[in-house]
Amino acid sequence: MNDFSIGIDLGGTNLRIAAFTSEWYRLEAITIPTRVQDGPGAVLDDMCAAVRKLVAGCGGGGNLAGMGLGSPGPLELPSGRLLTPPNLPGFERLELKTELEKRLQVPVIVECDANAAALAECHAGVGRKSNCLSLCMLTLGTGVGSGIILNGRVWHGFAGMAGEAGHVPVYHGGLLCGCGTHGCLEQYASATAIARAGQELTHTRTHNGFGTITARSIAEAALAGDTESQRIYDCVGEALGIGLASLVSMLNVPLYVIGGGVAAAWDLFAPAMFAEMDRGSYIYRLTRPANPAEYEAGKTNVFPAELGPDSGLLGAAMLPFFQSLSS
Amino acid sequence: MNDFSIGIDLGGTNLRIAAFTSEWYRLEAITIPTRVQDGPGAVLDDMCAAVRKLVAGCGGGGNLAGMGLGSPGPLELPSGRLLTPPNLPGFERLELKTELEKRLQVPVIVECDANAAALAECHAGVGRKSNCLSLCMLTLGTGVGSGIILNGRVWHGFAGMAGEAGHVPVYHGGLLCGCGTHGCLEQYASATAIARAGQELTHTRTHNGFGTITARSIAEAALAGDTESQRIYDCVGEALGIGLASLVSMLNVPLYVIGGGVAAAWDLFAPAMFAEMDRGSYIYRLTRPANPAEYEAGKTNVFPAELGPDSGLLGAAMLPFFQSLSS
Repeated sequence: MNDFSIGIDLGGTNLRIAAFTSEWYRLEAITIPTRVQDGPGAVLDDMCAAVRKLVAGCGGGGNLAGMGLGSPGPLELPSGRLLTPPNLPGFERLELKTELEKRLQVPVIVECDANAAALAECHAGVGRKSNCLSLCMLTLGTGVGSGIILNGRVWHGFAGMAGEAGHVPVYHGGLLCGCGTHGCLEQYASATAIARAGQELTHTRTHNGFGTITARSIAEAALAGDTESQRIYDCVGEALGIGLASLVSMLNVPLYVIGGGVAAAWDLFAPAMFAEMDRGSYIYRLTRPANPAEYEAGKTNVFPAELGPDSGLLGAAMLPFFQSLSS
Repeated sequence: MNDFSIGIDLGGTNLRIAAFTSEWYRLEAITIPTRVQDGPGAVLDDMCAAVRKLVAGCGGGGNLAGMGLGSPGPLELPSGRLLTPPNLPGFERLELKTELEKRLQVPVIVECDANAAALAECHAGVGRKSNCLSLCMLTLGTGVGSGIILNGRVWHGFAGMAGEAGHVPVYHGGLLCGCGTHGCLEQYASATAIARAGQELTHTRTHNGFGTITARSIAEAALAGDTESQRIYDCVGEALGIGLASLVSMLNVPLYVIGGGVAAAWDLFAPAMFAEMDRGSYIYRLTRPANPAEYEAGKTNVFPAELGPDSGLLGAAMLPFFQSLSS
């Protein structure tokens, strides 16, 4: 048996732990609820029990080559200390890396979940298919996460806060964001923002044809021909295009990857996104190939993510092999 | 005599060539007008004649350790090919690197002038004083140039276009920019933008107390107590703050350096700039020490440039020693 590595994906709802081969083939996985209400100690114990189970199951002849953990932010890196994660109440200032290493007696690399997902897309998803090692990935979910990969490695900045594209101001003086500032991309392109726009829409209608209003139900309505629902996704595309235009002008990486649940509605928001990139960026040869295999080197390429919701878990397992860049 | 390196600063008005020691002490310099009207061949010949003169003058016992050139953009890197530089008409698509190397028979590293200036500030200016190797420098002159230095090396992106912060959209749908898009930072924070705002101001006044209106004359009026002139610099500060907030959220480098002629008016625009960074960025511990020697590690620091208008020339001479990062 070959060497294997273990990835841990700490989510506000589920805790997932999996073992992967060095070719990133998944050997075994464990998913359990995250016992947030029982506190950090209980969750750390659950993680460690699952890790030991996987090591026992995969260890026949193979060696544990490394272990990584992806966590919701904000997070101080490379120290691996949680700051004040909104989805993990009671976990403030938890020394994730130190506590895990104390319990497991092996080194653990801790990373933002969005950075781990970007790393996975780089080495096993869009980046691999397009043979491109520098990318920025935006993850459109409850919030907007993002990660920057430069030449195959996560760019951290000085405190692990690089790639917070969700908090780039796209409309100056726009909507108030949870971070305390105004007009952040997250307020226009997250699933939360889309659902809110849908709820506002129903208030102005004489009938409510939606049932529970989510980003997905609005996408379904748009696909069924509802023009106001389509307009919501046009706004998502415009905000994304403004944010991407900033990224293109500053970072000039050749590849942008859009992931997270909202990315499933690619066909609904991509036309407005590309139009705004054309309009809003000092344009670096924007190209629109149909899929990553048709990636055009020397141009700006934008694709939906390839790996789906497991990218963060796989990326966590990759962390020990691609040392992050910090300033 | 020790080894020396040569830097060339190709400007639209002047051509400057200088030799530096490996401690970045300037040995000798030549400044001549850039004969733009005589075409690229004449300018290349002037450069080469000056280089040969410096080599002859400095070469007694020392070796030429390397040569670099900073040029106005846009420029394709690392190939060193000019694209369509607005201040060098007739120089479109000039193979700067290839042509120089053919004439001089030594390797020449070509770089954007704003990137060269950022490299110099990193290794001999603000970065050196603050002991910080990752920074983003904005150069506020006729336009707004910028350069990103990660761990002591220029970040190029895929086509040498990284760090075009002058074309980051700060006001969506704002003023039309020369690049063809709207609301770019350059339209609010360049000397050109400040002079234009001043000219508009005099149109609304019954008397004109300015003489020739420049960014500098408006700064002088503001310092003399003219509140409308001060308001122009408040707007510069706000636009800079919005652009810096984007940079902080995306790049998370710990150090931002403001250079170019407009930076002399630091006291006029800095308060609004810091206020907007506080308001507009998911704030990463913004700090305001008085000078680079009081730089605070682990925080976001912003300082005026230290090196003045020669930073691009010195940075050009440094290029052979700090290989750029491309994607």
